Amino acid sequence: MAVGTLVLLRHGESVWNAQNLFTGWVDVALSEKGEREAVRGGELLADAGLLPDILHTSLMRRAISTANLALDAADRHWIPVKRDWRLNERHYGALQGKNKKQTLEEFGEEQFMLWRRSYDTPPPKIEPGTEFSQDADPRYADLGADAPLTECLKDVVARLLPYWDSAIVPDLRTGQTVLVAAHGNSLRALVKHLDGVSDEDIAGLNIPTGIPLRYDLDEELRPLNPGGTYLDPDAAATAAAAVANQGR
Amino acid sequence: MAVGTLVLLRHGESVWNAQNLFTGWVDVALSEKGEREAVRGGELLADAGLLPDILHTSLMRRAISTANLALDAADRHWIPVKRDWRLNERHYGALQGKNKKQTLEEFGEEQFMLWRRSYDTPPPKIEPGTEFSQDADPRYADLGADAPLTECLKDVVARLLPYWDSAIVPDLRTGQTVLVAAHGNSLRALVKHLDGVSDEDIAGLNIPTGIPLRYDLDEELRPLNPGGTYLDPDAAATAAAAVANQGR
Repeated sequence: MAVGTLVLLRHGESVWNAQNLFTGWVDVALSEKGEREAVRGGELLADAGLLPDILHTSLMRRAISTANLALDAADRHWIPVKRDWRLNERHYGALQGKNKKQTLEEFGEEQFMLWRRSYDTPPPKIEPGTEFSQDADPRYADLGADAPLTECLKDVVARLLPYWDSAIVPDLRTGQTVLVAAHGNSLRALVKHLDGVSDEDIAGLNIPTGIPLRYDLDEELRPLNPGGTYLDPDAAATAAAAVANQGR
Repeated sequence: MAVGTLVLLRHGESVWNAQNLFTGWVDVALSEKGEREAVRGGELLADAGLLPDILHTSLMRRAISTANLALDAADRHWIPVKRDWRLNERHYGALQGKNKKQTLEEFGEEQFMLWRRSYDTPPPKIEPGTEFSQDADPRYADLGADAPLTECLKDVVARLLPYWDSAIVPDLRTGQTVLVAAHGNSLRALVKHLDGVSDEDIAGLNIPTGIPLRYDLDEELRPLNPGGTYLDPDAAATAAAAVANQGR
């Protein structure tokens, strides 16, 4: 028997996705296409009758706006909200603000793919005080020395799981439908945990933007539907293939 | 010495404000003008350096959207959020969905003004199951028999104050800047309490849309600046006069 229903939603296209830049913790806005994706995500929720009871988001505009637009479209704008930095995108270190194609050309395929997809190799640390660092951002002031300067996916898993255990799981255990609106890599980290994906196989797993991914979980929080169920499977397959080709 | 800073923000124009209809608990959206007002409200916050640490909203789309747009404009979209039905607009009973001008003509000036502005005379109750009632709305399912079928301002004060005491005051006492994004009458109820406005005088007090109203409160939660301080006083005076003339 399911204890609760988890719905994952990756934010729609951001203005930097559209420009093919590494974004990480830089707080860019959704593009107009991204806003339409978010509304469409909410319509998919409403059409499926999959109505969130509570929302968890990162502290980043593109996830927050996606949740706001999707929930408004699903007539669930009024549900409770919790936000936490532990749902943030992976910190991309010194790559933040750099063009993906130029980075590929400058550092070569092997290094590029290592930074993008290896489980435990973070990019170089970002220099504090530089244009795309977050050391002066008030929303992270409480983190102090815990604020990352770069992260690999393994680091994201490590900082995400305490929030999963302490904040999301309790909401699931009360039988609620929980929406998590977050990012490509924080959601990959969560899916890795849920489905027990290996450190190697997670490299090939891409989550498309704006398409709700439903997990029904048993008493031990194991998926009854391993891999989850996209509310629009055809669009998800097409979009996941496009993500895999970024930077080419 | 101030314990904390309270900022009140009435939602921007809704599509029903624009059509001069009694709205109450009907969950209408902002008009395009209302969206612009909300963004402007956020710009006023940013320009004044008055940056909210936490948001309290009603359960209604027009207040939630106003807060979302204003906080995004002020780069504070990431702050914690609490929502409660006790911040909702006054329930307008059987008048919900009716045109203000037609209601004035049908019932006459005296009855019209009694419903709009008397402290303790509610409009007739709304009939459950009719077009503009909320008895099937899931967000109020937990209220049961406490869900209002009509309200006068006295009723709004009575249901608002428990939330003020239990949820907003504790946030103020930790020294935070608290943004309350709500409605004409729930904010009048709060201002009545804060400034000790009499049952008679509150009839003449109108709060304009989209202009943040700042209160600095002392240890006993009394205003150090009675009446509060609008971030754009000229626009507030002009707008308050326009509200007073609604239905004419």
